[in-house]
Amino acid sequence: MSDRYIDFANSDLGRRLVGAIGLPSPARLERWQAGRLRPVEGALLLGGGGLANKVASFASRLTDTAYGAADLPSWTAGLGPKLKAVVFDASEIVDGTQLARLREFFQPVIKSLDHNAHMVILGRNPRDLEDPEAHIAQRAVEGFSRSLAKELRNGGTLQLLYVAPDADEQLEGALRFFLSPKSAFVSGQVLSLQASARQVTDWTRPLAGRKALVTGAARGIGASIAETLARDGAEVILLDVPQARHDLQALAARLGGRTIDLDICADDAASQLIAALPEGIDIVVHNAGITRDKTLVNMTPDYWDSVLAVNLLAPQRLTQALFDSGTLRDDGRVVLLSSTSGIAGNRGQSNYAASKAGLIGLAEAFAARLATRGATINAVAPGFIETGMTAQMPFALREAGRRMSSLGQGGQPQDVAEAVAWLAQPGSGAVNGQVLRVCGQSILGA
Amino acid sequence: MSDRYIDFANSDLGRRLVGAIGLPSPARLERWQAGRLRPVEGALLLGGGGLANKVASFASRLTDTAYGAADLPSWTAGLGPKLKAVVFDASEIVDGTQLARLREFFQPVIKSLDHNAHMVILGRNPRDLEDPEAHIAQRAVEGFSRSLAKELRNGGTLQLLYVAPDADEQLEGALRFFLSPKSAFVSGQVLSLQASARQVTDWTRPLAGRKALVTGAARGIGASIAETLARDGAEVILLDVPQARHDLQALAARLGGRTIDLDICADDAASQLIAALPEGIDIVVHNAGITRDKTLVNMTPDYWDSVLAVNLLAPQRLTQALFDSGTLRDDGRVVLLSSTSGIAGNRGQSNYAASKAGLIGLAEAFAARLATRGATINAVAPGFIETGMTAQMPFALREAGRRMSSLGQGGQPQDVAEAVAWLAQPGSGAVNGQVLRVCGQSILGA
Repeated sequence: MSDRYIDFANSDLGRRLVGAIGLPSPARLERWQAGRLRPVEGALLLGGGGLANKVASFASRLTDTAYGAADLPSWTAGLGPKLKAVVFDASEIVDGTQLARLREFFQPVIKSLDHNAHMVILGRNPRDLEDPEAHIAQRAVEGFSRSLAKELRNGGTLQLLYVAPDADEQLEGALRFFLSPKSAFVSGQVLSLQASARQVTDWTRPLAGRKALVTGAARGIGASIAETLARDGAEVILLDVPQARHDLQALAARLGGRTIDLDICADDAASQLIAALPEGIDIVVHNAGITRDKTLVNMTPDYWDSVLAVNLLAPQRLTQALFDSGTLRDDGRVVLLSSTSGIAGNRGQSNYAASKAGLIGLAEAFAARLATRGATINAVAPGFIETGMTAQMPFALREAGRRMSSLGQGGQPQDVAEAVAWLAQPGSGAVNGQVLRVCGQSILGA
Repeated sequence: MSDRYIDFANSDLGRRLVGAIGLPSPARLERWQAGRLRPVEGALLLGGGGLANKVASFASRLTDTAYGAADLPSWTAGLGPKLKAVVFDASEIVDGTQLARLREFFQPVIKSLDHNAHMVILGRNPRDLEDPEAHIAQRAVEGFSRSLAKELRNGGTLQLLYVAPDADEQLEGALRFFLSPKSAFVSGQVLSLQASARQVTDWTRPLAGRKALVTGAARGIGASIAETLARDGAEVILLDVPQARHDLQALAARLGGRTIDLDICADDAASQLIAALPEGIDIVVHNAGITRDKTLVNMTPDYWDSVLAVNLLAPQRLTQALFDSGTLRDDGRVVLLSSTSGIAGNRGQSNYAASKAGLIGLAEAFAARLATRGATINAVAPGFIETGMTAQMPFALREAGRRMSSLGQGGQPQDVAEAVAWLAQPGSGAVNGQVLRVCGQSILGA
């Protein structure tokens, strides 16, 4: 699963060669290490409108060194310290001339970014705004934000978060993810934070006391999700097909969890699963998935049906059953593993892309119903992730997948797991019915 | 503005070389020729649900040779004639198991496509559906549709059109565009048709009797838009800056229109324009735009302000003024020239992308208000188009822009103009507040 080009490009010789002949120069990305306490290890700068003050009220829990708009002249003069994190509140930009504030704020800031700096622009969802001028201006912020994300170097990331007027209290949980290495492979994304009953969260073990089910947990991304949920305090229940029992039990032993051997496509899968979870479940991660790639011309009925059955119909039926039976507890969290193929489509994957697009539909369609019990359902859409599966791709295709993104590399299973673990937190009720890409701002899109 | 690689790849020698060493093989795209009568010159196959019957009721106006679902066994047996157009109604797919109908229908069809075949899948907007299972299934159709579009060869295209329950009457106008060479460079797109008062349309001169204003009309895409609107029967009024007067007048003389010399950023631009249009205007195409590319680090205030002023603030102010003054007539059509950069963002174009994203916001924000008078406002987002501007790009960047799309080539200004001309039709009221990409299914996306 290693991308040796990153090692090369970051070696002494490699750096010179890469610079001289214009090769891609992917950065080494920092990841979250178990036991780390602060989301931001370095300087945080806050600017823009009044939401920056809200962030300032909890900034001391994010970092030791926070700066506000009054300090901006230091960076304008080129004298500010290197920045590890930046938050700019653009939500008060209500007409097109005020967009210049984005240029004014970010220009000096960009010059002072530390490596692996994480930035967030706060805005309002244009479609929620009555005033057409404000709608237009906020829509323009997205174009700015996606462009600037593409200009960042050294592992820098930038997201745009829409904050509903009554969702200020939801900011800390979101910024703990988006300003920290937990979101190392997320960039150029747009996500909405809605009002939600705030849950008291122990930020060092945000999943403490929560029971989490992970399907397809024996290997790869599923195993990484299980590890990350366990790291964050969850009691994990690992599910996979009976053939994977050996790997699954070894992982469960290591993580102190238990296992369920189950074919999620079996006719009685739902009743079996409910029976296996007599105490209920707080977190359900539908990670199990298969690929059977063929262009449609060569697609067999079996290839079509099996991919749809495992990837879409099983999560749909199980989610419905877990909810209807009350097995999914109040304030539950359901996370679906979609894919950038489900967003953009992919040659040779009409079955897979249909199933992964359907999962986005599942999150959209079930969100309101789950919200009646304080629960949420969201999709995570990985782009190119370094796994055993991608290691077997032909060289040219694998290299294209790795490099055709703003971060110029594939992600690690942990990157997907961190996004899942964040959405699984009790404090993540602000996000519901949405899809979060973990793709390094892959250029692939719809 | 020519792409000589297409000529090479379609030559005798080129075809053999391209096949042998795996180079891209972009097809020669057919375009609409003035004087052509039928949207489809060849066989049309209709299948799927009940909307196919609706299409059958006017199919004889689309083509001489239409086939229905009863004829499908001919293609399944490999005996059907080559198909130039295909419409499949997927709107009755209401659960995931029914998605297999897509595979069953399209598999034999794909094998029998003529060159430059145009296909449309009809569906329902998932977000309009009450039933979660139907929502999920319809969302899955998008993943299928975008994937299949990426598998087509020989200039084939495929779109997904969401048809609101009471929008059946809007189908003919949309299919006349999407099944004909007018949409040669549009593929993999999703668009919604809403109910709308149907306007009687003379399909041979769909813009007859309509007055159309085109800004930035002296050259390039603007000139092509003016020509295409005139071809379709509109009386054209060409606007550009005073410096472009010579080119503008030559074009107006050729098209039988008149000119307006105006700097759209002037303080009194709106009142000057209203005064210049005493009889009102039916169609307004905001095409004028500039680029001033720099990464944000090097972006000057002037580069920022001028791009925002020309590309976004001027169209916003003029649209508002034309509407408020009643100069935009009832059933008017406003079309804004956005860009795939406004959707996906682009390195070195934070100003341009902000302005072009803002135009998408302008369409969204003004749509409901314009609808109160039967008018619409939409954005067209060109991808890589062969113009004087793109001819000056560095070779590698130009080649990447051309090839990184399903059609493997850049579009022509006419392709953008055809999309504008379609949205400008009286019969296009079904589309409002939306953005239509003309990008050959460029892989760039958000």
